[in-house]
Amino acid sequence: MDYIETIGFVAAILTTAAFLPQVYKTWKTKDVSSLSLPMLLLFFVGILAWLTYGFLKKSPSMIFANSITVVSSFLLMFFKIKYTKK
Amino acid sequence: MDYIETIGFVAAILTTAAFLPQVYKTWKTKDVSSLSLPMLLLFFVGILAWLTYGFLKKSPSMIFANSITVVSSFLLMFFKIKYTKK
Repeated sequence: MDYIETIGFVAAILTTAAFLPQVYKTWKTKDVSSLSLPMLLLFFVGILAWLTYGFLKKSPSMIFANSITVVSSFLLMFFKIKYTKK
Repeated sequence: MDYIETIGFVAAILTTAAFLPQVYKTWKTKDVSSLSLPMLLLFFVGILAWLTYGFLKKSPSMIFANSITVVSSFLLMFFKIKYTKK
């Protein structure tokens, strides 16, 4: 693995791990009041596009990061819809 | 611009735009209760690493996206620290 991919994997681990406390906190507290649904929707579709880009560029770190983040962002979107008070 | 970079720019616009409603909402409501500071910190450092990766890979869409997101994530972190009740 060259040094560029090493930086990519550091980035991948950080931005991927960044979502885990948010997913955990949201799941635990069911507090979704300060999460924005438009943000979550745009982000989810954007991550799908980055995943495609990662495959086309044959970038292992981008494929790794975006495969995990696509799941995290789906979960946040699901919680936001489920826990928003009617 | 080849079609791979076009997909990259679509991704860039979506994930970048995704942060704007969140930044606006947080700035307007000062409600940071459901934002997680560990998430914001990891994310900010991760985006700096992706920006470096984008430069090393000479990827215009990654440089574009991460330059903007680094500012957005800094702002969210700033709001979280500023508006958290002591």
